[in-house]
Amino acid sequence: MAEATRPTPVIRHPGGVREPDTVAVEEPMELRIEGRPLLVTMRTPGDDEELAAGLLYTEGVIDGPDDLTAMAKIHDPRQPRDNTMDVRLAAGVDADAERFASARRDLYASSACGVCGKATIEQVMRRVPALPARRRVDPALLMTLPALMRPHQSAFEATGGIHAAALFSFDGTLEVLREDIGRHNAVDKVLGWRLLADRVPVDDRVLVVSGRAGFELVQKAAIAGVPAMASVGAASSLAVELAREVGMQLVGFLKHDRLNEYC
Amino acid sequence: MAEATRPTPVIRHPGGVREPDTVAVEEPMELRIEGRPLLVTMRTPGDDEELAAGLLYTEGVIDGPDDLTAMAKIHDPRQPRDNTMDVRLAAGVDADAERFASARRDLYASSACGVCGKATIEQVMRRVPALPARRRVDPALLMTLPALMRPHQSAFEATGGIHAAALFSFDGTLEVLREDIGRHNAVDKVLGWRLLADRVPVDDRVLVVSGRAGFELVQKAAIAGVPAMASVGAASSLAVELAREVGMQLVGFLKHDRLNEYC
Repeated sequence: MAEATRPTPVIRHPGGVREPDTVAVEEPMELRIEGRPLLVTMRTPGDDEELAAGLLYTEGVIDGPDDLTAMAKIHDPRQPRDNTMDVRLAAGVDADAERFASARRDLYASSACGVCGKATIEQVMRRVPALPARRRVDPALLMTLPALMRPHQSAFEATGGIHAAALFSFDGTLEVLREDIGRHNAVDKVLGWRLLADRVPVDDRVLVVSGRAGFELVQKAAIAGVPAMASVGAASSLAVELAREVGMQLVGFLKHDRLNEYC
Repeated sequence: MAEATRPTPVIRHPGGVREPDTVAVEEPMELRIEGRPLLVTMRTPGDDEELAAGLLYTEGVIDGPDDLTAMAKIHDPRQPRDNTMDVRLAAGVDADAERFASARRDLYASSACGVCGKATIEQVMRRVPALPARRRVDPALLMTLPALMRPHQSAFEATGGIHAAALFSFDGTLEVLREDIGRHNAVDKVLGWRLLADRVPVDDRVLVVSGRAGFELVQKAAIAGVPAMASVGAASSLAVELAREVGMQLVGFLKHDRLNEYC
């Protein structure tokens, strides 16, 4: 089990007392496709297979577990930690760094309006799976979810500085929670967990995230088919627009006694 | 002046009352070097020249204002907003998308340990400018800074969901503050403001950021020569390690009555 937190000395003020403290671990992970470097992400070590699978899924590279034929950490005895993940894809599924980069660029532009939010949303819409009628989750139930997450946020408890993402059933049962220094990684980990369990799209769950809901997170949830998403922080303009287009229930400022429902 | 916030209807719970609300604007911006696409970043519109200049500076593409010969938004009458920035670089300064991507990849790896935090720090160290003796700012003074930022955080006031970065002199006078949906963009905007004013490195200022201090933010500050950085949120393991290597004073959990000094 990789360490998600690490002790570090700190001087607390006022007082100026030197004490042991704990910080969230941040380390680079390189993702390779059949040996070719695709990207590097800064992440909290742990659940790296889920992270890699989730990232490839929510970026539209793979559609399901059958598109993955093998995943393995590359072990280098000189390395303190294995930070390179090599993925083999099924025949016909292609991803290399150049195609991946150009697909990302295409995401933001159309011939009609150049680089703009509207074009970005249109591109995401092409990748969103067709789903049964979307569900609206009762706001009173949503307000109960952050408290159900807290006992599982062990790295946050220790550090006060790490994000969490969790999937809940529509009746409010916690299915899976992951922590990561990056919000997008935490979301990729829970969605990748579902993909590796051969249960995508994730059209039967509510996604709750600890931070803010920006465009990128709503995009990941939409591509995974998530019908409802709630963030403890605010939502951005483009996140709200995308959720409205997709028909996703989007909630922000989720607290135990209040929330804002954007759509 | 580009709008940084936008009205949107919201249903507040409990109560279920539909009310007007305000969200932070998030839009893509494409950065081109002499017509060639370099990257797209999601940002809050406004101060786009500062953002572009700061990003090129803190990513190590340019060293100062003399490396920039022209910056201009590409205007397309079909676009609701001009979201493409074209930059011309001085002779001898070269940046294209492929070199930029490979430089980013190199950042995370060395031949000695593969992809790891240690290699990443070593790569950053090569780009950090030599500076006069670093200064340590009095923790009591640091605790006064967030309150000095608040009156200038107009978009945060309206939305509750946008980051801020600010530069202060060592006696606690606010020099410049910028807001953005992305923490890294807010930092690039204040450092880019300094670069466009022909005042880099930024070795005479404290950088305060509203969110957490991850590796990427400390890296940007280090490359700009910033001697002291304080974040309202936590710091990550790699951020602390980099700050220690560089000799930067790094503070986390900055509140009006307390803070943690990591180094």
